[in-house]
Amino acid sequence: MAKFFMAATNLLGGTAVIRGRDAEHIRVLRMKPGEDVVICDGEGTDYYCRLVRVADGESEAKVLHTAPSGTEPTVRTIVLAGLPKGERADYLVQKCTETGASEIIFFTCTRCVARPLNMDKKLERWQRIAEEAAKQSGRGLIPTVGFLGDYGAVLDCAVHTDLGLFLYETGERTPIRAAIEAAPEARSAAIITGPEGGFASFEAELAQQVGLWLCSIGPRILRCETAPVVALAALMYGTGNL
Amino acid sequence: MAKFFMAATNLLGGTAVIRGRDAEHIRVLRMKPGEDVVICDGEGTDYYCRLVRVADGESEAKVLHTAPSGTEPTVRTIVLAGLPKGERADYLVQKCTETGASEIIFFTCTRCVARPLNMDKKLERWQRIAEEAAKQSGRGLIPTVGFLGDYGAVLDCAVHTDLGLFLYETGERTPIRAAIEAAPEARSAAIITGPEGGFASFEAELAQQVGLWLCSIGPRILRCETAPVVALAALMYGTGNL
Repeated sequence: MAKFFMAATNLLGGTAVIRGRDAEHIRVLRMKPGEDVVICDGEGTDYYCRLVRVADGESEAKVLHTAPSGTEPTVRTIVLAGLPKGERADYLVQKCTETGASEIIFFTCTRCVARPLNMDKKLERWQRIAEEAAKQSGRGLIPTVGFLGDYGAVLDCAVHTDLGLFLYETGERTPIRAAIEAAPEARSAAIITGPEGGFASFEAELAQQVGLWLCSIGPRILRCETAPVVALAALMYGTGNL
Repeated sequence: MAKFFMAATNLLGGTAVIRGRDAEHIRVLRMKPGEDVVICDGEGTDYYCRLVRVADGESEAKVLHTAPSGTEPTVRTIVLAGLPKGERADYLVQKCTETGASEIIFFTCTRCVARPLNMDKKLERWQRIAEEAAKQSGRGLIPTVGFLGDYGAVLDCAVHTDLGLFLYETGERTPIRAAIEAAPEARSAAIITGPEGGFASFEAELAQQVGLWLCSIGPRILRCETAPVVALAALMYGTGNL
């Protein structure tokens, strides 16, 4: 069944008014009154609706019943990724959305090659990719995509979760599985991964000092756009969400 | 340290002769005699070498010592993927190589949208992607990329491993974690995933009849190029390879 996202307030009174790109999508799918759609409020509730009016620019649907989306992981995970170059960021957003991230935040750090130019435009683009991926994979919420220019704020963000995982390539580290298994009750988590050039050692030290796990993710070296997806899959597996 | 792959026979006598694209790569890196490189035989052994001669088209290195690559997972995993369209296949090969696949086999089935045209050329391209990703991630072997036109052969391939996982989107299935945990001693595994259109129900029934696990991978629906990567990450996590 076609799935759309909509702010909960537009669904009050038992009627959903579908506008903009979603209305266009309904038109493209050649849907007709009488057909059913799912409208998700983006906060974990699905509204099962029947179309009553289909028109250019605006369609209307009657709410039949509601149900919890049931597709959201039990762990709310923030992925914090060193800003990668070009298409890698698009890929990262798409795959992390499918795999269950709740929030995706890019940041710059010492060894970033990519420059944070035109970030407003890029964030808009990534948010669209997240929305598309959330729809396709049947997520109950659309991850928000953000940007932080301040490395301290990145660490602070991770510290305020139940399980802060900092992926690092060298030195003494905890296998990611051991870190995940040490927090079986985690309801929130953060995964921090570096850019193409990796992290400077002082950045890893800071992470450790504020109480994050310095983690390894196996002996193979993952590309910067692959690491967060594999780490997220590991977290979902370890917390019973796969 | 720069890593290259080479058939073991070229390393006999304590000297490695590096030709072709690898020699070109050494030239591009502006490496000089006296610098060290790692040459992997693609079968699990790394040769630590020192360059003694660098020239256009051919370089020579002296073997200092050898060591097991130590980056290969304990489970030898074949990824069998319904042939996807366009760039998705490239992505699948690259990410599955990084994540630890030993072999990647595309196949066609009822709901495949992609047509298996010019397969020789495509296989050559994918093999190159696998080689590149194996080098970058420090793998001890280069996964071979293949193609099977016969669905029966795909199932047969999976049946001859210790743990055959068939990812399916609907009906009664075993969570992938339960399937993996049921085979703690597995030394080989197969992950079968469908194309964009998924599997026909008879294809899933056949898989079950020959003894494969029909698996779910969480309540979210993954794209056809994402599912094998997430499943592989789950397998690596569950078998202690992350």
